[in-house]
Amino acid sequence: MDQENNPQPNNNQMVTPWEAHSNSEDKTKGIDYKQVISQFGCSEYSEKFTTAIEELSGEKAHRYFRRGIVFAHRDFDKFLEKVRNKQPIYLYTGRGPSSHSMHLGHTVPFLLCRYFQKAFKMPLVIQITDDEKFLWKNMKIEESIKLGKENIKDIIAFGFDPELTYIFSNTEKSYLFQKNILKIDKSISLREAMKVFGFTPESNIGQVEFPSKQIAPCFPSSFSFLKKDAFVLVPAGLDQDPYFRLARDKCRALKEQKPASIYVSLLPDLRGINMKMSASDSNSSIYLTDTPKQISKKINKYAFSGGRETLEEHKIHGGDTEVDVAYQYLRYFFESDEELSILKEGYEKGEVSTGEMKKKCIEVVCEFVKEYQERRNLITDEFVEKFTNEIRNVYE
Amino acid sequence: MDQENNPQPNNNQMVTPWEAHSNSEDKTKGIDYKQVISQFGCSEYSEKFTTAIEELSGEKAHRYFRRGIVFAHRDFDKFLEKVRNKQPIYLYTGRGPSSHSMHLGHTVPFLLCRYFQKAFKMPLVIQITDDEKFLWKNMKIEESIKLGKENIKDIIAFGFDPELTYIFSNTEKSYLFQKNILKIDKSISLREAMKVFGFTPESNIGQVEFPSKQIAPCFPSSFSFLKKDAFVLVPAGLDQDPYFRLARDKCRALKEQKPASIYVSLLPDLRGINMKMSASDSNSSIYLTDTPKQISKKINKYAFSGGRETLEEHKIHGGDTEVDVAYQYLRYFFESDEELSILKEGYEKGEVSTGEMKKKCIEVVCEFVKEYQERRNLITDEFVEKFTNEIRNVYE
Repeated sequence: MDQENNPQPNNNQMVTPWEAHSNSEDKTKGIDYKQVISQFGCSEYSEKFTTAIEELSGEKAHRYFRRGIVFAHRDFDKFLEKVRNKQPIYLYTGRGPSSHSMHLGHTVPFLLCRYFQKAFKMPLVIQITDDEKFLWKNMKIEESIKLGKENIKDIIAFGFDPELTYIFSNTEKSYLFQKNILKIDKSISLREAMKVFGFTPESNIGQVEFPSKQIAPCFPSSFSFLKKDAFVLVPAGLDQDPYFRLARDKCRALKEQKPASIYVSLLPDLRGINMKMSASDSNSSIYLTDTPKQISKKINKYAFSGGRETLEEHKIHGGDTEVDVAYQYLRYFFESDEELSILKEGYEKGEVSTGEMKKKCIEVVCEFVKEYQERRNLITDEFVEKFTNEIRNVYE
Repeated sequence: MDQENNPQPNNNQMVTPWEAHSNSEDKTKGIDYKQVISQFGCSEYSEKFTTAIEELSGEKAHRYFRRGIVFAHRDFDKFLEKVRNKQPIYLYTGRGPSSHSMHLGHTVPFLLCRYFQKAFKMPLVIQITDDEKFLWKNMKIEESIKLGKENIKDIIAFGFDPELTYIFSNTEKSYLFQKNILKIDKSISLREAMKVFGFTPESNIGQVEFPSKQIAPCFPSSFSFLKKDAFVLVPAGLDQDPYFRLARDKCRALKEQKPASIYVSLLPDLRGINMKMSASDSNSSIYLTDTPKQISKKINKYAFSGGRETLEEHKIHGGDTEVDVAYQYLRYFFESDEELSILKEGYEKGEVSTGEMKKKCIEVVCEFVKEYQERRNLITDEFVEKFTNEIRNVYE
């Protein structure tokens, strides 16, 4: 077995596709990304990539690159090389429908995909894992499919290009896709799947086979409109790395190119940076359907503060932006580097209070959600079809 | 777990979907069907069913019923009750494409299906498990799909009714079918699959999930043209019982009716009744593509004889029809009960020689294969479409 697929075990934190948190109860102890990098065997993101992106796209790199929110990768340098040489490339991301609306944490990979699509005119395939939700959650398949269809509208609202974007659901698999799933099925032993994904005898057989479905879109041969040698970049939350690590291990046997991936830090839970935002707790999550009033209330009431016990102490000693959730959200959603840096400095010196930091956070998040909602309200069923029908061969 | 799914282990013989033989090297020791019945927990076939079939169909029952070739069942009485009450019913059988032509052993469930379809005007669904062959054999998926398409023609040539027959391949699954597979996936734990099918950590994850695909057609909700409450009868080789046993176990959770099944004895290998005919050895199998000369040569040369060492001894002591492969094939393929009984008696008394028994066997098998080949040669691609397009709702 390839070394990529032999991550070192780690008892301080848990990062699998179904769980991501540090094992600490301490709300100021975030996931240790350096440790994850060495545990998973991926590479640290380097600032030279930001320079390369700006050079190749002719514009400023996305704030996720500028601020180290993209913290790790596999073969991102190869991807940039393909861009440089104008070779065929595409993006792959996905989403599992949930009974709640999408929350802010879900937006991160989509925003990154939108950025890449615009910057490099790239085709993008988006997988709706309605089967996954059914297999893992107490949810009827009809419910999961229905939620998936709603989620397609939610995704389109990020502003993807209909000429370059194909959104498909796992319960309506195309022939090419099914064929690739079978090939991947055959290449993965039960032993490997149990080791990589932690399946147990109690797992159901659909769960055990599911990894093939998430891996299949890494290969351009799953899609009629992609060139056979198109090189894929997968922007993902690092909790999804086990899939792509396994995909890379299987490439030689499957005669495919290894997928490149970039990993974005997980947006923290409102209540502390030791957990990622989760859809299941409405107090810890800001949904894309929330009103400004709800957003304001949640951030004011629940956002873990890096400030001091009293305002006086705060003025003397300053706050800790590293663990301040309001500041962390600004890192993800506030575009101005300059203003962000002023806020950071001010907070750490005690000149900016927790209340002021939260106020700015509320303003930025409300603006982001409002713009999103305006686009979302315009999505018609007719427009959806432009995304769910296979796109034309984009390289011709 | 339901008791149905807790068969007793048995060391004298091996009967799984991928292996069926007695563990004896003795070519006169066949599979002990009584033992299999108690091992699998199914019910023995009763002659009263033959009477009921004749009463309900108004004609003579198929020779497989008259001769005990159908030896076991699950809920066949319920099925006959549905026929009696004119409630919706359907048949389900399947075939895994192989690199060789079909052999005589493969014809048995198809002949039984054709009989039922004619007798009771029943819809029939036939699953081509091209995925199974790929997952278990050293075969490319493209090859398995291609063989599957050829096999559809081979199957149509048995003479099924195009208005009542739907043939589909697992690599081109319909939406309803995929949805049901997921539901079954979720209902089967890895532990159960390993126990029932003998999967090991070395099994690939496609194999582990495959049972759901073979089980799905047991439920009418997998097909748009069947009534929701249609009751299925599955005529199968007994080696397929683990699938249907598991299907029955899951019915309560899946809110489906339990499938009924009837099991036909496995046509023996030419070289002895201790093994079933296998596609992989051309000496032990008679293919539906064989010429009369090939058939004649194979039976004369390889068919295990129940006769005595010398013709003189044979005349004195008589032969053993139980182990005589030529006689056994006549049981499966020779229609006349009267002539068969004369041959049996004559052989056991020593009046009919091994040569004469083989001669009759060759004559009957050649005639069967010739008629089949004549029908097979007439199958056009256009005619195939009548079977691979979903049939109309047959109950309206």
